[in-house]
Amino acid sequence: MHALVFENRLRLDHEYAIPEPRSGEALIRVLRAGICSTDLELCKGYMGYAGIIGHEFIGIVEHAAERPDLHGQRVAGEINAACYACATCHAGRPTHCPHRTVLGISGRDGSFAEFLCLPYENLFPVPDQLTDVQAVFIEPLAAACEITQQVDVRPNDRVVVIGDGKLGLLCAQVLNLAGCSVTLLGHHAERKEWIGHCGIHVTSQPQDVTAGADIVVEATGTPEGFALASTLVRPRGAIVLKSTYYGQLTYDMAKIVIDEISVIGSRCGPFAPAIRLLTQGLIQIDPMIHAHYSLQDGLTAMERAGSKGTLKVILCME
Amino acid sequence: MHALVFENRLRLDHEYAIPEPRSGEALIRVLRAGICSTDLELCKGYMGYAGIIGHEFIGIVEHAAERPDLHGQRVAGEINAACYACATCHAGRPTHCPHRTVLGISGRDGSFAEFLCLPYENLFPVPDQLTDVQAVFIEPLAAACEITQQVDVRPNDRVVVIGDGKLGLLCAQVLNLAGCSVTLLGHHAERKEWIGHCGIHVTSQPQDVTAGADIVVEATGTPEGFALASTLVRPRGAIVLKSTYYGQLTYDMAKIVIDEISVIGSRCGPFAPAIRLLTQGLIQIDPMIHAHYSLQDGLTAMERAGSKGTLKVILCME
Repeated sequence: MHALVFENRLRLDHEYAIPEPRSGEALIRVLRAGICSTDLELCKGYMGYAGIIGHEFIGIVEHAAERPDLHGQRVAGEINAACYACATCHAGRPTHCPHRTVLGISGRDGSFAEFLCLPYENLFPVPDQLTDVQAVFIEPLAAACEITQQVDVRPNDRVVVIGDGKLGLLCAQVLNLAGCSVTLLGHHAERKEWIGHCGIHVTSQPQDVTAGADIVVEATGTPEGFALASTLVRPRGAIVLKSTYYGQLTYDMAKIVIDEISVIGSRCGPFAPAIRLLTQGLIQIDPMIHAHYSLQDGLTAMERAGSKGTLKVILCME
Repeated sequence: MHALVFENRLRLDHEYAIPEPRSGEALIRVLRAGICSTDLELCKGYMGYAGIIGHEFIGIVEHAAERPDLHGQRVAGEINAACYACATCHAGRPTHCPHRTVLGISGRDGSFAEFLCLPYENLFPVPDQLTDVQAVFIEPLAAACEITQQVDVRPNDRVVVIGDGKLGLLCAQVLNLAGCSVTLLGHHAERKEWIGHCGIHVTSQPQDVTAGADIVVEATGTPEGFALASTLVRPRGAIVLKSTYYGQLTYDMAKIVIDEISVIGSRCGPFAPAIRLLTQGLIQIDPMIHAHYSLQDGLTAMERAGSKGTLKVILCME
């Protein structure tokens, strides 16, 4: 099959073997996949990954030996494949299973290919109302929902999201649904209009944002973003790290202690709420779709995804 | 009056003016004061403070114009003097009031002197059962209680406290009262026996501590302590920063994000619970008292407090 493979360098492989599902796993024919910033980081060496990249996708179950009911189902897939046998899994934290593989990120070939395998319990049927392209957003939207799963977000809170990239735009929308006052800090003028229509205040000027926010979501993945978050959050407030960080950050711990700030790392999130929100039309994603490429043009697609100002790039497998 | 004053260097002043209480403040004659690691840090330039140092104390109210009922009361004192007029105070966070002064730390002369001033609302009557020396521990014990005020600590949790200094020993005891399994990591063999008798597991070997703790309290204030905390905490667990950090710390943000760790700064805490715990005899403090000095010997006392292996040094004002 065709596949985008990273092994020291990124290449398009035309003869990659179709994966064989293990017991408990389904073989899925990928329809569409989305390029995420993490994919770009992986190609710079993040996680030391080698294999097919990609983890956002929508597909059709092609084969599911023990679960014939899944045959032909259109599904999205939770990317963490857990063992469900260890203490972490038994404690209800399977996405943190130390034995997990992660689709296209760690120990498991990903979604930028014609086929992939995932355990049955990772699969979520996608409602007919959602188009294939919309369904590609289930995974990143789930990551945005992880914030409200982790942090008590209250309607009277003032929230600032730093970074108007793909994840920042989704986080701002999810938090906005909690009734919060949400300000999005980003420098892309063309995003200001449509995200502003959602009721989110948008500005490119940090000095326009009143300090003392209850929650600040850092969605740039940069030291500058974190430094800014520290100046904007109120005492006893929370900074949520919602990005792929690659490398070390140097920081003034006295500020965290004196102001009793909570710094909360946030990664993958729950699929069911993401599917509910998308199906109800509560999240705007259409303005975030910047380009479609065929898998065969995958290398160009990756280049485009990494170019300045580009939001979601979709790969089409057929 | 006599006072230990830091102004670029530490000196014993014999003719410092007795402070004049402002409206709403009491004049307090200091009986005993405790030397805290923060005092040592202040003398290295932390906070850029100049004035009388010291913030742990027990004293007698000498003058309280608008509150004659306080006259002659033996009191401990919350060290943050808030305005009670700003948004932060109105939100119920007076210890974070941006206009606050802090006894012996910021904008207000401290307790290593014969007299000090504090607002009436900062004063807590000390029960007769507590000796003066025991009462000096109310303030640092309140700081330990701040952890259980900030973080959901559950009886089934496994907690590791890194650092068997003054604050680490108090934190371990407070957490132990929650029914948790508490391990204290510290290298002072002589502390092992008495703190072990409290039911706390003590070890000097990090490799003896099973990773995957629900909560790790970092009470060393060092980058090494933080790095160790990161390896010991479980995914979605909490690292509490319970120390005076002076300077920058470099950390691997990817670990915080991937494991969804919460890093929680923790500072001053509630006095009322600290007084209750001490009065009920639930906290062992006697083995922590390492030396008594008169205020006149304050410079020697500070030297002793900064010497390796020394726990609490008490200053006697009379």
